[in-house]
Parts: sequence; structure tokens; C-alpha cells
Amino acid sequence: MKPTVKTGSSSYAYQDMRQRLVAEMKAENIKEFLCSFTKLPHLAGTEQNFHLAKQIQDQWKSFGLDSAELVHYDVLLSYPNETKPNYISIIDDLGNEIFNTSLFEPPPQGYGNVTGMLPPYNAFSAQGTPEVKNAILAGARGVILYSDPADYCAPGVDPYPKGWNLPGGGAQRGNVLNLNGAGDPLTPGYPAKEYTFRYEVDEGVGIPVIPVHPIGYYDAEILLRIMGGPAAPDDSWMGSLSVPYNVGPGFMGNYSTRKIRMHVHTYNKITRIYNVIGILRGTVEPDRYIILGGHRDSWVFGGIDPTTGTAVLQEVARSFGKLKMEGWRPRRTIIFASWDAEEFGLLGSTEWAEENVKVLQERAVAYINSDSSIEGNYTLRADCTPLLYQLVYNLTKEISSPDEGYESKSLYESWLEKDRSLDDDDDDDDQPRINKLGSGSDFEAYFQRLGIASGRVRYTKNRKADKYSNYPVYHTVYETFELVEKFYDPTFRKQLAVAQLRGSLVYELADSHVIPFNCQDYGEALRKYAKRIYNLAKKHEEQMETYEVSFEPLFSAVKNFTEAAADFHRRLEQVDLKNPLAVRSMNDQLMFVERAFIDPLGLPGRTFYRHVIFAPSSHNKYVGESFPGIYDALFDIGNKVDLQKTWENVKRQISIAAFTVQAAAGTLKEVA
Amino acid sequence: MKPTVKTGSSSYAYQDMRQRLVAEMKAENIKEFLCSFTKLPHLAGTEQNFHLAKQIQDQWKSFGLDSAELVHYDVLLSYPNETKPNYISIIDDLGNEIFNTSLFEPPPQGYGNVTGMLPPYNAFSAQGTPEVKNAILAGARGVILYSDPADYCAPGVDPYPKGWNLPGGGAQRGNVLNLNGAGDPLTPGYPAKEYTFRYEVDEGVGIPVIPVHPIGYYDAEILLRIMGGPAAPDDSWMGSLSVPYNVGPGFMGNYSTRKIRMHVHTYNKITRIYNVIGILRGTVEPDRYIILGGHRDSWVFGGIDPTTGTAVLQEVARSFGKLKMEGWRPRRTIIFASWDAEEFGLLGSTEWAEENVKVLQERAVAYINSDSSIEGNYTLRADCTPLLYQLVYNLTKEISSPDEGYESKSLYESWLEKDRSLDDDDDDDDQPRINKLGSGSDFEAYFQRLGIASGRVRYTKNRKADKYSNYPVYHTVYETFELVEKFYDPTFRKQLAVAQLRGSLVYELADSHVIPFNCQDYGEALRKYAKRIYNLAKKHEEQMETYEVSFEPLFSAVKNFTEAAADFHRRLEQVDLKNPLAVRSMNDQLMFVERAFIDPLGLPGRTFYRHVIFAPSSHNKYVGESFPGIYDALFDIGNKVDLQKTWENVKRQISIAAFTVQAAAGTLKEVA
Repeated sequence: MKPTVKTGSSSYAYQDMRQRLVAEMKAENIKEFLCSFTKLPHLAGTEQNFHLAKQIQDQWKSFGLDSAELVHYDVLLSYPNETKPNYISIIDDLGNEIFNTSLFEPPPQGYGNVTGMLPPYNAFSAQGTPEVKNAILAGARGVILYSDPADYCAPGVDPYPKGWNLPGGGAQRGNVLNLNGAGDPLTPGYPAKEYTFRYEVDEGVGIPVIPVHPIGYYDAEILLRIMGGPAAPDDSWMGSLSVPYNVGPGFMGNYSTRKIRMHVHTYNKITRIYNVIGILRGTVEPDRYIILGGHRDSWVFGGIDPTTGTAVLQEVARSFGKLKMEGWRPRRTIIFASWDAEEFGLLGSTEWAEENVKVLQERAVAYINSDSSIEGNYTLRADCTPLLYQLVYNLTKEISSPDEGYESKSLYESWLEKDRSLDDDDDDDDQPRINKLGSGSDFEAYFQRLGIASGRVRYTKNRKADKYSNYPVYHTVYETFELVEKFYDPTFRKQLAVAQLRGSLVYELADSHVIPFNCQDYGEALRKYAKRIYNLAKKHEEQMETYEVSFEPLFSAVKNFTEAAADFHRRLEQVDLKNPLAVRSMNDQLMFVERAFIDPLGLPGRTFYRHVIFAPSSHNKYVGESFPGIYDALFDIGNKVDLQKTWENVKRQISIAAFTVQAAAGTLKEVA
Repeated sequence: MKPTVKTGSSSYAYQDMRQRLVAEMKAENIKEFLCSFTKLPHLAGTEQNFHLAKQIQDQWKSFGLDSAELVHYDVLLSYPNETKPNYISIIDDLGNEIFNTSLFEPPPQGYGNVTGMLPPYNAFSAQGTPEVKNAILAGARGVILYSDPADYCAPGVDPYPKGWNLPGGGAQRGNVLNLNGAGDPLTPGYPAKEYTFRYEVDEGVGIPVIPVHPIGYYDAEILLRIMGGPAAPDDSWMGSLSVPYNVGPGFMGNYSTRKIRMHVHTYNKITRIYNVIGILRGTVEPDRYIILGGHRDSWVFGGIDPTTGTAVLQEVARSFGKLKMEGWRPRRTIIFASWDAEEFGLLGSTEWAEENVKVLQERAVAYINSDSSIEGNYTLRADCTPLLYQLVYNLTKEISSPDEGYESKSLYESWLEKDRSLDDDDDDDDQPRINKLGSGSDFEAYFQRLGIASGRVRYTKNRKADKYSNYPVYHTVYETFELVEKFYDPTFRKQLAVAQLRGSLVYELADSHVIPFNCQDYGEALRKYAKRIYNLAKKHEEQMETYEVSFEPLFSAVKNFTEAAADFHRRLEQVDLKNPLAVRSMNDQLMFVERAFIDPLGLPGRTFYRHVIFAPSSHNKYVGESFPGIYDALFDIGNKVDLQKTWENVKRQISIAAFTVQAAAGTLKEVA
């Protein structure tokens, strides 16, 4: 007789069900969803995106989910003024505008008559028409962002539509908020419902006070030429805004008498947005939630971002619905979420997290993100909590590689070969690379604020060879279905592999008797992070001695965590699987271990980033930083004036990290 | 056959066990514990209190608890300088000290040779010898506190030892920190362990910057006479210190040319303190905790405070241990705690809560406080979360009244007769009064910071007739065993009744299949609190209209909570008690409903008071305030300058309260 439950790995029965789920997913369906969902622009807050929400809701119901609801919030969004376009001009000595930048991107073929294509803009820019002369001594009066071909073109590739490079008329949209996880800028910490108190816009979180505008490189080239060539990047001129992507160098004529005038009429507006929330109720533990969420809103067509993720989410939901209609249900509840207004600062996902914070804290086992399923087509990329490393590795071994030349290989095998983790710290680590979670997508509130174990997987470019930022046409009108179909994933097999992996992660988290988290990997990760931050500090060894800075408490806490994790997994091997409360108790310990790293006081100056082990880097929000409190306290320490105070802060951050790791270790010990 | 489980009320089997527990407790034992534990002073941080900790630890082990451990912290304490006594003097025009206040209280008979009796002082006072003339125009340079006979003497009662009134040479000790729940002032938010970063004392939380000293009314009378009679209380002179009790009016000569000089040499010292933590492991759900905790440290002998509580804690622990040694175990784990350094700002209990915050958030069902079991001998007093109202009422019906003249009555009956709740709001509420939880004892961190359902019960004076503050000899050297034995509870039956009630609460919380919380009572309490705060605001009806202030969202949220609670209890009646996970799931909802009222952002300016429904009053920490965020925003609104800003803040606080109640309602809904 086959065992029906088995700890540590899946039972045959489970494998059968997971294999059925994986086999149910079809590349052709993903292609159809992508094609259907990218015909029109779906900017947050528009009628078109509301319609798409209803369409997804209807589909989820038809797939067999137990429920699918629209959940709305009224959040601050930002749009260009349709009657007063944004642009940049150059003014000659007589005050004439001798050059104006483009008002829109030339639309891709076949999309010329589509309505709702908004021109490139930076959401939440301040309004204004500041003029900028060739010497700004203090402060910036405006910021112009452009995508430099050096950063947004791959060598030897044609611009779209002949290839997948950025055309010179394309410009990258983005928001310019500095939210640090607050969600809607007017209702930080609370959901933006009808009854919610709103700050005035000038009190809102992270809203810039100067105009910002993005332009393409054709326009940039002309501006630079007329103004006298690019200057070196100038921090004071760029201001302290958190720009949403790696921008090319700021530029400014440094000898011309001409001036640049910005014309920015973008306006802020409290606007209704809609998440779609679908539920597939669990049988045995309906009060334990696995969330699979990705955003639906796009800057224009969203050909890659987010709709390669939306299409995958749809195919995963459809496949789970199929199993459910055939009589199966997961052990735990699966929540599917189609988020709105991610592009405006992760608003839909954050507001939902805020509204449901109490039940999420108590019941959420894991969050899996379903933003863009591709940003390249070379190999897999995974960013996740260390708790999920083993699960990701195990599942990729059971999914076929979609890569050419790897036809009989597993996803794990192609991934390992293409992106082997050669850790500086340990070279015996012969596994594919997994990255730390940063931010820039909807898992943020779940992981960084609430401490829900999270992960994201997608296909990516070759990190060693491909040096361009992101993918070239990111956030432009050229992100179309055809871009994906012609250049990125013609067979849709990469997206299928991603769907299978996302779906398998959700499946295992929702249906395994024992939650498939590995705490020992967390211990090992903590050990590496502690060693790394110690090595960073040790560059100032003499000062560390002077100010009596010791990392011993942190090392000791990490050691305790590692031992507690090992003990925990030993006990877990021995748990009586027929005793429901004994299993539940250990599952609760697994569920809450990530939560244990949350400090309600937040990181210094970043109230809503509360995870002590990970945070979005203070210098690039897309990247994750480990022990961020200590890291930021050490940052630029060589240039600090008050060394005493600086090192006291480092010591305080070490103390907080040591306490938190120690407390997390405590949660893994025997419960009484 | 008797049912073995029954929801809503206890089964026969349970009743038997509870009756055995109650019958096991003996007044004589409480008397012996009290006598034994009050022979010596037990000031926090002293060798004597460490010895008492070890004695209690040994006793708990001998009682049969599974474990009993000492847990230490290194916290900031404060002591008088043994070689430079504190006193107040009056200086004549020539600079001579013509009068000095007493250096100590005359010790009670039989205690003259005891070592370790520290003189009256205010812990954490600043040091200094400020002089105070008869006109202070701005700011206070020092504060002198005295216990006015008008507040600390009952009419017709002799001073101790002939009666229980305060002798003129007695002075009330206390700490003068303004901690607002921070625990150790140098390690706010984190446990004061060896590795913990400590602020410097001048950066510590709530440490006053001016000297403070308490004197008796003999000395006060002389000071007042020489200085020209009492002045009216003067806020600017009293400074903004949070004084630990209702003090008599500050006084100050207002025409004398003489000066007052304070001599305060009290010093702060980081000192090791010890909690004793005892565990009685649960059988079925060892990962669910019921905590019974009370402090052990006393200012001197602690005859009432805390040792009438310590003795009760000891008798309850002994009785549970007896049942356990006879083969019984509770369903859930019981944690017994003997806290240290309560008198210095609830330090032992707060540090332990900080150290164990993660597991407590996940696993603590309830906290029952065991501070002083009497502060009078008239009737019962209960302060608790609305979740416990029914349990308190039900259990008091099954405990015999200890009151004279109520020999055949239940505790409930005497309590009802002596302290009937005649709510302004509902006069159909024919039940004994139960108060809101404020602070001033060790439940604070558990309830106000962590949202663990909490309660405290004790015997009290007649609130209608007895107008003196607290009990007269509170925090003086005259709190002795004899005081209790001669005047307060000669038979020890009041303390026995309190022990039986505390023990029964712990028993039911630990052993009932379904956690005995009633959410509908919370709904009703919320309704009353919302109505009350609305009525308070409505005194400014015109301004409310001007600034568009509406309480509708709060009323609506309360209604939703009430409905969700009713639905929840209907479902609870129908739950399949043989399905362990179904029961656990609903028990989890019950456990987490109090937690749902916690806002990690804290109340305005009070980071560690995080309960949105209750907080210690900002004006008297011993008293609980409901909807404290709104209350404080409305406070003194008639005298506010910027009305717009003030009402905006009121609106924001209403919004936060409405959200929180709504979110709590969400936790009671069906889980999927």
C-alpha cells in the first residue's frame, strides 16, 4: 500500500496530484491568455483595467474557484494631463523654444488606433515648468530621466519591431515615489477604504516636490548635443528622489547659455482600483492560506510586465480549478490575487495586506509572486526566503527544462549549468543561484512588512553576458504580445515552465501534510550573512576596537538558531503524523518562523520594512540586502563625522539583529 | 455516561477537577506563605530578593511543576545613597538649615533590627540639591511629594500599628519614571540581556531630569507651616513627571523669604534581577499558554503589595502541582511567573515579554495577574478584557463568599450586592461591576503591548464610601504581615477567595476544550465605548459639523464586530468537537481576537501602548481608558489653538479605531 503521508518529501499520492496539475498546464493556453490580455492598455484606475478585472473574475469563477471577488481601494494615482502634454524644451538666449522632446512614443505597428495609450511619464511627479541653467549649485529643480542605449540596448540587436532592443523614441515609464513599503501614500499603515482618513497630498509618503520626466534616447541625444554634451552624473542635480530603475547619467550642459525648460502637468488623483481575490478552500486546514498573487495593471499593453505573469497566474488558477472540479481540494486554502496599481507603488497588494493584516499574520503560510514570468529567456531566476530553497530545488528537478539543447533535462539541470552558485563564501555549494528578496513587486508587503515566507520565480537573461538593465523595452509602449511571441518565448515553453514551477510551489505548500519549509537552510543563510556583514565591518578593524564593537552576540545567536533548526527537524522526522494537533503544532512553528524575524518597530527610518534579516537595499530597491539595519549603519562609515555615534548605532543594530535571530531560534524549540 | 467535553460551560468531569483544585487551596497556607515571605525586605536587585526567588523556585519544583527556572535581566534600577541620605531642608535668610525632614520611617515594632529597610525615596529621581524659592516662574527645579492625611487616612481609624491608617512618619515610595510600557529604560523594545545595546542614562526612556523626594505628613506639615501654608497645586512647578500615585497638592510658600533645599543623592545602577518561571506542561495543546504572573519584589516588607499576591500565586501553584502529581495535566500549558522589579517600572514582566515576544504572540491564550490579592476587604474587584466577563461571573458563582454576613452565599452574590454595575448607558445590566484594564501592574506588557487577553482580580475597599487613595500605608515600611493579619484579612478567607478565583480562571482557560472567551461581550463593550466617546465629542457639535467629523465608520465597524461575534458563537455551538483541527481553528480565532486590536504603530507618542481599544489613561496610569487614541485627541479640545489640525487628528484616530474594530471582526468570520 502506498503511504498517504510522508514528511520531508511528497508521497506518491501527492506526486500524482502534482503531476496532474503540471500536466494540465499548456503553453497554448498561456499564449492565448497573453494575447487576450494585451490587446488594450490596462493602466491602473482606468475603465479598461476594471473590465479586465471583471473578465478575470468571471474566468476564475468558471474555472471552479469557490469564490472570486473584486476588492476596491481608493488610492492616490497620477496621470498626465490630456490637454497639456508633458515635454522638455531647450530655450535659446531670446527665450524661444528651439527644441521640444516628443509628446508620445511612435506606437508599434497595428496598435496605432488603440485608445488609452498614455505617453511616457513619471507618476507622482510634481507639476511645474522649471528652467534649468547650466550650473545648479544647490538642489535640483527638476529631474529628466532617459534610457541610455548603453544601458538599454544589447549589442547587435535591432530595435523593436525588428528586434527586441529599445527604439530611440521609446521612454521608460515609472513612478517616482519613495514609499518604502507604505502603499497608498495618503493612508500609510491602513487600507484606503471609504472611511479611511487621508493625509493631504503634501503630507503624503514619498511624493517628490520637483518635476520628473522620462525621455527617449533620440531626444536625449539632441538635448545633450545642443546643451553641450553630457556632464558626469551629478547627485545634487539628480536630487534625492528614489528613481524606479537604473537611469542613465543625468545630463546638463556645462557651458551653453541655453536653458532647459521642463513642462510637467501630471496630476494626482484619488482613484478607485480593483484587486480580484479568488479562493479555493482547503479541506483539512481551511484556516491556513497560500497566496499566489501578481499584478494586472500595466503601463501600456504590459506585453511582458505583468501580463506574462497574469497569463501564468490564469493558467495556474485554471489548472487548480480543473482538479477541484474533478473532486480534489487542497489541504489548505489557496488564495489567488490579481493586484491592481502595482506600477504606482505596489498599491493594490499593499492595501489588501493592510486590510487583511490580522488574518494574514495568523494564517498565511506563504506568498508566491506572479509578476512577469519572463524578463529574459536564458534560464530560471529564483528569489525567495531560505525556507523555500529546498522546495525550489526539488520541484525544478521534476519539471522539464524548456531550454533549447536541454530537451531531456530537468529545469534544475539547465538552471544549474547556466547559473551555478559560486558563493564567495563556500565553494562547495554546487547548486543553482537563488537570490535574496528585495522589492519592486507585490510580495513586498507580505515578506518585508508581515514576515510571510515568500518567493518569486521567472525566466531571466544571462547575468554574466547580458549587461543591459532589465529588458530593453521595459515599461514602454513596445511591450506587446508580438514582442514576446517573436523574440522572447515563441513556443511559450519558458512561461509554461514558470507556470509549472509557480503552480507546483503553491501545490506543495497547500497540500503537503507537513509544510515543506527547511529551517536549516535559514540557519546556513544567516551564517553567511553574518560572516559577510562582519567582514564588511572589519574593514574598519581599528575603529571596531576603539569603539568596542563585537559581532559575537550575532554569531552566537546564529549558532543557536542553527542548532534549534537541526533539533526541530529531528523532532519533525519523529512526529506522529496521525496526531493532528501534534502536526499542526509543528506546522505552526514552521509557519511562524519567518514571522519571528519581524520587528514591529521597523528598520531605522523605514517603518514598514520590518524584516530584520532582509530588506530592499536602501540604494536599489530591486535588490535584497541582508542584515539591512547593520548594513545601513555601516554604510559610508569612512565619511562619517561623529564616529562615536555612528559606531554606537552599529552596535545597536547588531544587538537588534542578535536578539531577533535568538528569538526566532526560540520559536523552533520544544513548545513546552 | 458523563459527557467528557462540552462547549460553553464546563463538563461535569471538568467541574470535578476544578472543584478539587479549589478545595485544595487553604487559607492557612496562604497565611504561612505571607508570613514567610514578609519577614525581610525584598527590594528588587538585592541579595534578599534573589534568595526569595531561589526559595520560590525550589518550592515550585517541590510542588511538582515540570520546571522552574530563574531568568535574569540587567536593568536600570535606582537606590538611595547609603552614605548620603536624601532629605529636604528649610534654609533661613542666613543660609542655615533650620529644619530637615526625616531620614527614615520609624520602623514598626519587632522590625527594628531588620537589615535592608531602605528609607523612603523616589526611584530614578535625578540627583541634586536644588533650592526652591517662593516663586517659580517657569519650570520646576525639583518635586516634593507627600501623602496628605486627607488622601491617606480613613476617618476614625488609628494610624498603624493601632489601626491601619498612615502614620505621620510614613512616606510612600514609588518610581518616577514615565515609561509608557517601555520596560527597562535603557533597552526599550528589547530584553535587557548581556548582549543588548543600552542607551546612556540621559537617553533612557522617561527618566526625570529633576530631583523628586517623598516625605510624610508630619514633615510636610512643618514645611508648609514654616514656608507659609500650602499653595494651590501648580502644574508648572510639579513639572510634567508621571507621578506613580495620586499625590497631595504640591506646596510652596508664597510669601516667605526662606528657601527649600532638596538633597537627593539617589543613584541609578544597572542591576541583575530575577524572574522565576515555572511550567506545567499541557497534554493536548502544549503550545498554548496560560500565564499566571505576579511580582515578588517589594519596597520594604511588601505585606500587602505584592506578597498577598505572591502568597496566592504560591498556593495556586501548589494546588495545580498537587493535581499534577496525582496524575492530571491541563490540556494547555500553564506558565507561573514570579516577576522581579515591578516597583521600578514593571521591569521583570516587561523584559520577559520582550524576550519571549515571538512565542507569546503565537501561543499565549491569556494572562492572569497575581499582584496584591487585597487592597481592601470589602468586596471583589475585577479588571479584565470583555472576553473574560462571562468566565469571571460564572466562576464567582461557584466560589463561596468570604464576606461576613454572606456565609451561605456565593462570591458573585456578595459582589453583586456590594458593587452592582449601574451603567449610565444600560440600566438593565444587573451584574457586578467589572473595570477596564489600565496599568500599574505586570499585565501591562501582555495586554497593552501584545494583546493577550488579560485579567486581574483582588479584594478592594468600598468604592462608594472609602474615599482615601489606595490603602493608607501603601508602599511604606508599615506594610507588614501583622497589618494584614490584624486589620485586613485575619481569617485569610478574602485572600483564599481570590486564590480560588485566580486558580479557577487559570484552570478553565487551560483545560476547557473550547477557550472560554465570549466575543459578544466584547461587541457590547465596544458599543458602549463608541457611544461614550461619541457623546464626549458631541459636546462640540458645531465644530464637528464644521470639520465634518463623523463617528459613523466606528459605529458601523462595531456593528459588524457584533454581528461577526454572534455568528461566530453560533458556529462554535455547532463545531464538531471530535474534529481536533476544527476545534483548534476556532480556538485560534478566540485566542487571536484580542491580538487583532493591536496596532504595531502604537498609540500617538506611546509606541509600546498598542491596544487600540484600551490604554492606561494618559492622566492616571492606574485607570484604563477606552478608545484612547480618540480620547486623547479630544482631550482639552476647548483650549486648542489650531482647531483644524486638532479635529483632523480626531478624524484620523476615529479612522484607525474603525479600521481596527473592522479588522478584528474579520478575524471572527469563517476562515475561508
